[in-house]
Amino acid sequence: MNPAAPGPFAERGSARDIEEGEAFAPKFDDAGVLAAVATDSDTGEVLMFAWMDATALARTIETGHAHFYSRSRGRLWKKGEESGNVLEVVEMRTDCDQDAVWLKVRVSGAGAACHTGRRSCFYRAVPLGPGDLTGRAMTHVGGAPLFDPAAVYPGGSKPDTGAPND
Amino acid sequence: MNPAAPGPFAERGSARDIEEGEAFAPKFDDAGVLAAVATDSDTGEVLMFAWMDATALARTIETGHAHFYSRSRGRLWKKGEESGNVLEVVEMRTDCDQDAVWLKVRVSGAGAACHTGRRSCFYRAVPLGPGDLTGRAMTHVGGAPLFDPAAVYPGGSKPDTGAPND
Repeated sequence: MNPAAPGPFAERGSARDIEEGEAFAPKFDDAGVLAAVATDSDTGEVLMFAWMDATALARTIETGHAHFYSRSRGRLWKKGEESGNVLEVVEMRTDCDQDAVWLKVRVSGAGAACHTGRRSCFYRAVPLGPGDLTGRAMTHVGGAPLFDPAAVYPGGSKPDTGAPND
Repeated sequence: MNPAAPGPFAERGSARDIEEGEAFAPKFDDAGVLAAVATDSDTGEVLMFAWMDATALARTIETGHAHFYSRSRGRLWKKGEESGNVLEVVEMRTDCDQDAVWLKVRVSGAGAACHTGRRSCFYRAVPLGPGDLTGRAMTHVGGAPLFDPAAVYPGGSKPDTGAPND
């Protein structure tokens, strides 16, 4: 398949159609994916960032549960398939040029979107301001883990792969 | 330059260091960029999604104003350089594997992050549920434009390039 093909979605029209129109015609990159960001529908906290191919996007829309594409594992991935931390999509939006989606979600199960057990993957703040960048120490701001990854993922955690566990 | 080189940032350590440590060691992809999402620091609304190379990330941290890398134009891009809609970064976070950043921002100028003049680039909602995906009509939920793009960008709007105007 041409990775940039629209899959089950509409062909893209004119630039004006894409920006101002009502037709959903998502744009996948050369690798066949688009960017997806999930936020907590109550608090607005960014919970995670991941990728969707056409199948993951279609499955998300059809089921209301967030699906992604794992680039490292090369497969469709339903968030929460192992951990039970399913993301129930309350609202989905796309951006001006339709190459990214924003999911407002409620997290099922332990309520943790991150494979480290934390509510959000974004649990560390980077200090701003001039000065050395190599020794910039972050601050943990995300709170304690809500589950034990070692117990939830018997196969072991898979950090630094670009594909968080489930 | 090797696009995946860390630039002015720390070399990446072990998987445990990357996930649990305090050292900021961002990961750039093969094209030399990482994903950046900006949200309104007051409301949590997702305002825009864009890319940063090492220079854009360093400049953002050092100045507190969001900088991105325009893939289509192949250059560093200070958000608001044309429109005045600068993004003042209130807090920056990174995720578990440090290949994405979340900026909580205040928008200067007209208060619009989108080159279409709207507050957020995510101004259309995609209906969820089973059924045909090619004819899925979106709903405009983002409100009216806060500025006139034709007046602000004399060179014309550049839709559908993956690089919104400034």
